Amino acid sequence: MIIQPIVDLVAICARKGVKNVILSPGSRCAPITLAFARHPEMHCRTISDERSAAFIALGMAQQTQKPVVLVCSSGTASLNYAPAVAEAYFQEIPLIVITADRPTEWIDQWDGQTIRQEKIYGNHIKKDFRFPDAFSHPDQSWHAHRISNEAINIAAAYPAGPVHINIPLREPFYPSATEKFNYSLPLPSVDQVHSGGALTEDQKIQLKNQLERYSRILIVPGQQRPNPKLQQLLDQLMMEQRAVVVTDTISNLQSEHSINYHDQFIPVAEAEKLSPDLIISFGKSIISKSLKLFLRSSGAEHWHIRPNGYIPDTYQGLTKQLFADPASFLTFLGQNISKNDPHFQEYWTQCDQHLADRLKQELSHAEFGEWKAIHQALSLMPGKSKLHLANSMAVRYVNFLGPRPQEVICNRGTSGIDGSNSTAVGCTFTTKEMVTLITGDMAFFYDRNAFWNNYTFNNLRVILLNNHAGGIFRIIDGPAMQPELEEFFETKQALSAENLAREFNFHYKQVTLEEDYLKALDGFFQPSVQPKIIEVITDSKNNTSILKEIKAKLKAGFQNSGQVS
Amino acid sequence: MIIQPIVDLVAICARKGVKNVILSPGSRCAPITLAFARHPEMHCRTISDERSAAFIALGMAQQTQKPVVLVCSSGTASLNYAPAVAEAYFQEIPLIVITADRPTEWIDQWDGQTIRQEKIYGNHIKKDFRFPDAFSHPDQSWHAHRISNEAINIAAAYPAGPVHINIPLREPFYPSATEKFNYSLPLPSVDQVHSGGALTEDQKIQLKNQLERYSRILIVPGQQRPNPKLQQLLDQLMMEQRAVVVTDTISNLQSEHSINYHDQFIPVAEAEKLSPDLIISFGKSIISKSLKLFLRSSGAEHWHIRPNGYIPDTYQGLTKQLFADPASFLTFLGQNISKNDPHFQEYWTQCDQHLADRLKQELSHAEFGEWKAIHQALSLMPGKSKLHLANSMAVRYVNFLGPRPQEVICNRGTSGIDGSNSTAVGCTFTTKEMVTLITGDMAFFYDRNAFWNNYTFNNLRVILLNNHAGGIFRIIDGPAMQPELEEFFETKQALSAENLAREFNFHYKQVTLEEDYLKALDGFFQPSVQPKIIEVITDSKNNTSILKEIKAKLKAGFQNSGQVS
Repeated sequence: MIIQPIVDLVAICARKGVKNVILSPGSRCAPITLAFARHPEMHCRTISDERSAAFIALGMAQQTQKPVVLVCSSGTASLNYAPAVAEAYFQEIPLIVITADRPTEWIDQWDGQTIRQEKIYGNHIKKDFRFPDAFSHPDQSWHAHRISNEAINIAAAYPAGPVHINIPLREPFYPSATEKFNYSLPLPSVDQVHSGGALTEDQKIQLKNQLERYSRILIVPGQQRPNPKLQQLLDQLMMEQRAVVVTDTISNLQSEHSINYHDQFIPVAEAEKLSPDLIISFGKSIISKSLKLFLRSSGAEHWHIRPNGYIPDTYQGLTKQLFADPASFLTFLGQNISKNDPHFQEYWTQCDQHLADRLKQELSHAEFGEWKAIHQALSLMPGKSKLHLANSMAVRYVNFLGPRPQEVICNRGTSGIDGSNSTAVGCTFTTKEMVTLITGDMAFFYDRNAFWNNYTFNNLRVILLNNHAGGIFRIIDGPAMQPELEEFFETKQALSAENLAREFNFHYKQVTLEEDYLKALDGFFQPSVQPKIIEVITDSKNNTSILKEIKAKLKAGFQNSGQVS
Repeated sequence: MIIQPIVDLVAICARKGVKNVILSPGSRCAPITLAFARHPEMHCRTISDERSAAFIALGMAQQTQKPVVLVCSSGTASLNYAPAVAEAYFQEIPLIVITADRPTEWIDQWDGQTIRQEKIYGNHIKKDFRFPDAFSHPDQSWHAHRISNEAINIAAAYPAGPVHINIPLREPFYPSATEKFNYSLPLPSVDQVHSGGALTEDQKIQLKNQLERYSRILIVPGQQRPNPKLQQLLDQLMMEQRAVVVTDTISNLQSEHSINYHDQFIPVAEAEKLSPDLIISFGKSIISKSLKLFLRSSGAEHWHIRPNGYIPDTYQGLTKQLFADPASFLTFLGQNISKNDPHFQEYWTQCDQHLADRLKQELSHAEFGEWKAIHQALSLMPGKSKLHLANSMAVRYVNFLGPRPQEVICNRGTSGIDGSNSTAVGCTFTTKEMVTLITGDMAFFYDRNAFWNNYTFNNLRVILLNNHAGGIFRIIDGPAMQPELEEFFETKQALSAENLAREFNFHYKQVTLEEDYLKALDGFFQPSVQPKIIEVITDSKNNTSILKEIKAKLKAGFQNSGQVS
């Protein structure tokens, strides 16, 4: 039987430009699956492991900035979506999660594949809806149309996020041979218009007065997608010495002008000389732990700029929640502040410059290991391409290495290791550019079902740093000193990607030596019919000692450089 | 720093006999990990993929009937437990799910790996607890001890289930070199005593009077573990013709006396002659859809027997929720009912016998395919062993084939395909008997991370029926008639287990022909140093036609046999 309001939901999606769908197989969801699959404008893909399906949808929506639809059957399928739904919630990525369900009367009657699906994503969903389960009264169809409009609008509205539509369904699930899907009925459509988030003249006057108090302004952009306008505004603020701009790799706002090596020099530089009187932040989280700790103890005022939504107090000193568009605020800022205290501005710049120079020297003669392997891959990677980084070491290494032209993508909403392969695969579905994933072995094998599908992702490149363990546990001091290190923290694992590569038809090269690695990188980023993996086998202990040694050298160099009195 | 109440939680687990722990690596959970790992009586294993970890714990607790502890770090790790937690909830298996968390003040401050973990399992948990995050007042330690006692008692009490302890933790997570774990402090301990669930004399008199009304009593045991006492009581009721006992394979109560082939004959037999006046059920769900539909339309009284807890109305005619121990009720029943109406009793028996005979004939000359492959494996499988069945076709095929001596295990709480490998691996950790998993390719590859660990499970045997798709969708009529069948329902998948077997060090044999399969089965169930897989490559269309043909033959044979007038 065709349920017209489900067909209408699909038609409303299409009209709102929501056209990418990730389906997972099931029988209860058949009316939804068929309604999406038969719509001429919908691009449907089917992914069997729902955990991976949801991260693939997330990887797509991350790029397209449009909601992606997920459809699964009743039962634990919906729970397998939960990790990606939480990541989407905190990373503010629009997903429309549609779960088929039994009708209410069959919940808790011990019938098959029946769980309690209402509100199943708890506090990690922007809003959840219960679709009507019968349409005998016209208000029920009207309600279904309301839900369809609202769900899509809410998912897409800033700050974007996942919404959940639970659809109870009774048999029969399949249309008879003569039934036809009609997507062209007249349907209610509610558009949303959001104002631009510009400041009023009164607000500007007030802020201008307040800004006069500060002469050591530090701007800290959090995670966001590349934004040339913001980039230009920030570079100008730096060049005109009106503000210090401190950027992590996930801000996608690093440049030759911004401060990029703070994670290394903050712990050794003179805190007082770095100390701001006003912190201005926007975007989401940052990676650098030293920056976080430094900001938390700075005692400065802290303004966070955001068009709307929730604003946290990440640095424990928030004083203003400024609901405005960051670009228009920065434009205003550039026109209304004088130059920063030159000692403050120069000290940050000098420290950063010193670190950048030393790092370059160290890289030129560093021992081969994870760190150098990443550096070498980055230096050959096409500038106009996508760089996916897994948690937890990959993103830290890249952050250590400074600015780069690629868009940097990492699931830092919840910082899990559970979906980085799938997110990268989802990304390949949206672009013809190269998509490179740099990952460790734990994250890589955790999410291996990312590749278990029938679609091509030949623009995917994987640099797999296989140290056969969760290397981060050896790098942080606490676990490294416990006798349980290898079994319960690092968790030694024996896999290499060789079998996986054969299974999923990747071009595969395993290397241990630097010269072989450089050979493998030759042509690696050229277009190809297969996706490619280079697996770099390294030793966890060795990586740790290389990293520690470099950090010690940088620290010593810094202390001898005259930056510290 | 050592947090004594966490050490005490471990000590209380040990005193209550809870000694199996599945850890997943993380830093936030280090104080919990170390407290479990250093206790001399705890058996800890570490599993990196939390989805698999939780199903492994479930597979262990299913067998040991004791709570198994799960420990993971903060963030989406806890959400990866959710599918197994839901399965444990509905299958009533005791798990103690311990999740490390950030302290409250850091929730929603956009710090790393922080989600909203309180009550994260929603309605799929028996109870959730929030462990104290500071111990400056003695009542806070007392509270921690209360939670430890309560959580274990609640998980284990009938009906058993999962409980959640969320533990907020502040740094430092690691003990200093001089700190020692002390597990022998005097601790409050609360034991539970549950009365036996026997009926009172008054209740017996009343029930006896009520039972006099019925002469067509049908007993339907739901899913449960093997129970020789119940088995004997049921066999006796059948032999004495006091009740018809209808059993699915997951009841673990099938015998030569019980009705086992009802799923085939109910749709073709004469409903009126099968029709009971009293249905007595106990245990959890059943598989047979024809039995369910038949019972729902029977109009009979329905009593469900259960020591305590929730009782659903699976057959839409529940009239009595009888809170008593099934064994004592059946004992009482056997002493207090006369013989059933002989026409009723005989018709069930004749129908079943007819089906059993015909099935044997059909099997002897059936074409080779999934169905016959399962039959052949079952006939060679050691009687004293464990048989795990994946959803959804494996369990249906085995149910079709009638009684067997092995314990039959299947995740029918939620009937998901997401954890059957892991559940079987968990089972191997509890027994030296052979553990055989019969599974289809979708369930098998979905849960491949089940094998990604450093432990041995050489008593595992896998019969993998690989038709490169979700075969069930071709067997049920609805999807089979849609043009989207192959892409969106069956979901063609290309993998064979060859690479997986190499990767995880399985003895592996792939077969297509019956003679090769029989050769591969020769010695398959002998002890070995490696686990073993036989991958049977079959064709989805062919399997469907074999099954349809056999069912049609059985139906025709039945109709011509004189069972139907």
